[in-house]
Amino acid sequence: MSASLEEIREKLFTSVLSDCLDAVGLMNQALPSRIRPLDDSLVMVGRARTAAFMEVYHHEPGTNPYELEIELVDSLKPGDIPVFACSNPARVAPWGELLSTAAQVRGAAGALMDGCTRDVKAIRAMRFPVFHGGIAPLDSKGRGRIMAIDVPIECAGVRVEPGDLIFGDADGVVVIPQRVEEEVLKLAFEKVKGENSTLEALRRGEKLADVFARHGIL
Amino acid sequence: MSASLEEIREKLFTSVLSDCLDAVGLMNQALPSRIRPLDDSLVMVGRARTAAFMEVYHHEPGTNPYELEIELVDSLKPGDIPVFACSNPARVAPWGELLSTAAQVRGAAGALMDGCTRDVKAIRAMRFPVFHGGIAPLDSKGRGRIMAIDVPIECAGVRVEPGDLIFGDADGVVVIPQRVEEEVLKLAFEKVKGENSTLEALRRGEKLADVFARHGIL
Amino acid sequence: MSASLEEIREKLFTSVLSDCLDAVGLMNQALPSRIRPLDDSLVMVGRARTAAFMEVYHHEPGTNPYELEIELVDSLKPGDIPVFACSNPARVAPWGELLSTAAQVRGAAGALMDGCTRDVKAIRAMRFPVFHGGIAPLDSKGRGRIMAIDVPIECAGVRVEPGDLIFGDADGVVVIPQRVEEEVLKLAFEKVKGENSTLEALRRGEKLADVFARHGIL
Amino acid sequence: MSASLEEIREKLFTSVLSDCLDAVGLMNQALPSRIRPLDDSLVMVGRARTAAFMEVYHHEPGTNPYELEIELVDSLKPGDIPVFACSNPARVAPWGELLSTAAQVRGAAGALMDGCTRDVKAIRAMRFPVFHGGIAPLDSKGRGRIMAIDVPIECAGVRVEPGDLIFGDADGVVVIPQRVEEEVLKLAFEKVKGENSTLEALRRGEKLADVFARHGIL
Amino acid sequence: MSASLEEIREKLFTSVLSDCLDAVGLMNQALPSRIRPLDDSLVMVGRARTAAFMEVYHHEPGTNPYELEIELVDSLKPGDIPVFACSNPARVAPWGELLSTAAQVRGAAGALMDGCTRDVKAIRAMRFPVFHGGIAPLDSKGRGRIMAIDVPIECAGVRVEPGDLIFGDADGVVVIPQRVEEEVLKLAFEKVKGENSTLEALRRGEKLADVFARHGIL
Amino acid sequence: MSASLEEIREKLFTSVLSDCLDAVGLMNQALPSRIRPLDDSLVMVGRARTAAFMEVYHHEPGTNPYELEIELVDSLKPGDIPVFACSNPARVAPWGELLSTAAQVRGAAGALMDGCTRDVKAIRAMRFPVFHGGIAPLDSKGRGRIMAIDVPIECAGVRVEPGDLIFGDADGVVVIPQRVEEEVLKLAFEKVKGENSTLEALRRGEKLADVFARHGIL
Repeated sequence: MSASLEEIREKLFTSVLSDCLDAVGLMNQALPSRIRPLDDSLVMVGRARTAAFMEVYHHEPGTNPYELEIELVDSLKPGDIPVFACSNPARVAPWGELLSTAAQVRGAAGALMDGCTRDVKAIRAMRFPVFHGGIAPLDSKGRGRIMAIDVPIECAGVRVEPGDLIFGDADGVVVIPQRVEEEVLKLAFEKVKGENSTLEALRRGEKLADVFARHGIL
Repeated sequence: MSASLEEIREKLFTSVLSDCLDAVGLMNQALPSRIRPLDDSLVMVGRARTAAFMEVYHHEPGTNPYELEIELVDSLKPGDIPVFACSNPARVAPWGELLSTAAQVRGAAGALMDGCTRDVKAIRAMRFPVFHGGIAPLDSKGRGRIMAIDVPIECAGVRVEPGDLIFGDADGVVVIPQRVEEEVLKLAFEKVKGENSTLEALRRGEKLADVFARHGIL
Repeated sequence: MSASLEEIREKLFTSVLSDCLDAVGLMNQALPSRIRPLDDSLVMVGRARTAAFMEVYHHEPGTNPYELEIELVDSLKPGDIPVFACSNPARVAPWGELLSTAAQVRGAAGALMDGCTRDVKAIRAMRFPVFHGGIAPLDSKGRGRIMAIDVPIECAGVRVEPGDLIFGDADGVVVIPQRVEEEVLKLAFEKVKGENSTLEALRRGEKLADVFARHGIL
Repeated sequence: MSASLEEIREKLFTSVLSDCLDAVGLMNQALPSRIRPLDDSLVMVGRARTAAFMEVYHHEPGTNPYELEIELVDSLKPGDIPVFACSNPARVAPWGELLSTAAQVRGAAGALMDGCTRDVKAIRAMRFPVFHGGIAPLDSKGRGRIMAIDVPIECAGVRVEPGDLIFGDADGVVVIPQRVEEEVLKLAFEKVKGENSTLEALRRGEKLADVFARHGIL
Repeated sequence: MSASLEEIREKLFTSVLSDCLDAVGLMNQALPSRIRPLDDSLVMVGRARTAAFMEVYHHEPGTNPYELEIELVDSLKPGDIPVFACSNPARVAPWGELLSTAAQVRGAAGALMDGCTRDVKAIRAMRFPVFHGGIAPLDSKGRGRIMAIDVPIECAGVRVEPGDLIFGDADGVVVIPQRVEEEVLKLAFEKVKGENSTLEALRRGEKLADVFARHGIL
Repeated sequence: MSASLEEIREKLFTSVLSDCLDAVGLMNQALPSRIRPLDDSLVMVGRARTAAFMEVYHHEPGTNPYELEIELVDSLKPGDIPVFACSNPARVAPWGELLSTAAQVRGAAGALMDGCTRDVKAIRAMRFPVFHGGIAPLDSKGRGRIMAIDVPIECAGVRVEPGDLIFGDADGVVVIPQRVEEEVLKLAFEKVKGENSTLEALRRGEKLADVFARHGIL
């Protein structure tokens, strides 16, 4: 990939990337609307570090319920994004201020989960991007446990593999598999230019029919 | 109708209109809570221009997937509100910055859909009112297609006919059928006065029981 | 309880209380993520005054559909929190500006319901804390009716008994039964201290594994 | 109505009645597919005796949790059908062998509920028609309570008023309001004749297009 | 394909075909458990003839609401299976006795839909295999309309293309795309043999661990 | 416990056990109505052997995806009932003919799962009781994996601990924790007698009100 994460963050956005994923035939790369940013002024770009939860119904005393969670976060590299497949319990919040702090210190680009997050005021104050399936206070201990990290997962119904490029902004989140990354980014940098001329034509009051006939963009 | 759209926008609000629709026996005119404004400081008042989607699972090359969408938006008149019945796929975003721009240029009063919208930062910056069923980036192309415009539809479970008066604000959206419009507006302009005196009495610490006995409003 | 409601509001938060409820073996005390604050800058602490709705499908003319609602609100004492179990219809908004005004005048600490609320701009302007299951305009009249007050209920799946301590902030809401209140508060005041040192260690870049081994907090 | 309940039971069926309700403009009279007969060889025809439940979360010792249930069943007349609106808890089974026995002894034509039923082997052995929202063992005591009988209700989303004609068979259940009963029955007796000739033509291998052109029935 | 439909029907079954689709890497070919056979003693094998519905909310007088339905059924060939993507309304029953009769006369192998069916006693008596998403009486007229036939669709979340091999029995339904048909059938005919020896070993009381080690089948 | 499993199976039934669990204050012991018997003429009584699944999204070649499943089934003792908590994917069928055969050979009393089952015709022919959350063909390999056996689980929302007494019949399934087992069984054997006299009184046409006043049973 020739574009840096920084360049991607500045020039691209979720909608255009989603259209370009469609253009290469990948139609199921956008997370559904129930996954929202904690702070929709932040943009998140980075690479997936995955974790898969299972539901548990008891905590075995003397064991560490956060073992793999700790291993994952302690091993984050700059630009990494922990992506959690939280299984059934949308009530549980496996992410909060402490993990955000540890992740941010290591240079992580954000965090993504289909479960909940908590400590949301503190996380917003840190300006650390978190995309989540809800806000709730329940800790994962005794409810859910990470059983594997850096494996293929599904987050809110979208497949995520370790290393996939993740892009999130106010419009949601898309997952860009590495095998199509170069092509999708190339298409996206081109498309953003076309959208600007379309927009200007529409602002001048031209008919959509004419603008679409000329630019082929809607 | 003697009241102008402007007067309605300034003096009325969704809750009082909903109560007055109840008063004339129409109990299913409010959209459910999953339909939210993109910007809850904006009020939307206008007349429905309807569109009905069907789900599709492929895009036929060489055809224009946005044909009726373009026809609808290009024909918008001042005060019109495109209302989209998006069918099953709440994941799909048939509305975004380009359509908002084209609609606003033509004087449309806003847009309403039970599906998703995208480009939300740009739309908020334009101060164009959009009421939607979620925020997500997926384009409708290859996923859903408008098959009919200006026909009766159901948007999020509420029947909308072309020309119905639509009112939306921070509390949600109500649909006022034309046959009851005059009566409902008359009742609403009266009720807003009563609510103010009720409110003042309550602020003075009067008992709800007494205030309700006197004004009959809660 | 030695701590005042004021002290609880200033020093504690939903997440730490949720963890301490877990610690005493009560795992189902947090409301799910669909219950949200109207204004997430407000904190709500107080004691539950419960109400149980049933769904109705007609309004009997000449009867007062708000009878027990009025009785409950007129009898609120400072620090009380009306808690409504709204039954099925998440579309209905049994709470709004008038009830908020009457409740605030009597010193109520906020309101909690699994149904909807309306008049949200006015309520936010009053800075009265309302935690709700959605925003929608439909009045309860002819749709739902309170049949009992000050009885055990379930609000969004969590049991609430009259007098239970309710705490709500940006992270959600927890219900603290009176029989464990003293123990949970004691644990919570202790835990908030530990979290601060954990946080500082993480900010310095210490490994989560080491910090967790030392403090046992995550 | 000129036709007897017996004649209706013998000659008509749910599908044709549903089509005739459509024909008179009532489009929401059929219960959804989650309401099923316990025994799909039985046909149920009779008049609604309605009951509305509320969810409760405790049983007050010394009170009779079945008070209105008993009153309703003890007052059943031949041809009556108890229709229960069970509110949220689809887990609860307010109907079983004892109520079926008492109802059958009084000549009731069957029972309909959007909640569950239990004792299903015994009820099937009695050949008493029960249409229900599921099979489960949980008693209503401490979970749900009838608060009103012989009032308008909604059963599984369909409005039922006392005295409405209820028809159920293997295809499901329709509710025929009394104001359209005569017209709907007349249409239905006519339509069943047309369907037979359509069927015969199709069996002979005629084209659907021709048969539909001739009979207008599908 | 060397195997005839008859041979497939006699020797194979849904479970083994599902495992073989997994084996070739197609993991989303089985319809979910909400799609059930009307008569679970019947086996259905044939090729998909697809139809895509849209939801409608009115019937335009003078138009034929069944136009494409009729065209599809009149053009069925022996071994064909109409497959309906019914869109949202699981309440609507687009299939019944008349269509079953017309389809059976033309040699159709059965019918599959994610919506409902009606006239179920008559269809069972005909021994025509119908796999459906529920039983309910509501006709599609004024509720849903076929807008395209012989196009790619999704039926209950599984993609079906015209000509795909469909297999249904008491365990459900699988869709076998034509490009993998030969390979999947070959694997399946092999696997059924292995399952028999596994079964015999288990019946003799051998340990699962040993049998699985030897046959690799579970 | 003085009663044998055989005596329990012959004299008791799910409904009476559910009422007696209520009587000792355990209100959440019945599985919801979506858990159904494969064959509702069979009664299942035995002790829980639990297993907890996690969702997986790939199969690691060279590993045994059924490792703990095999260990659990190979270690079944007479009267045991494997109880599977299948996590999210209700589409997956972790149980079928091979496991039923191996379990039946070892004297297992049946099987219970909140996921699906397959090979249903073969299992019915064996008269092995299976209570399940649906019928579907998809194997668990690459979709779900047992991560722990003989631990506390939740099956369809009901807590099950190893050794709990499980009772299932046509009315559904109840879970009887060992600490209340003796008391619940004693109450149940008593209650079945009372129900018979209640039933006879009702058959004679006595009023429910009188019978309930005399027997206190409904």
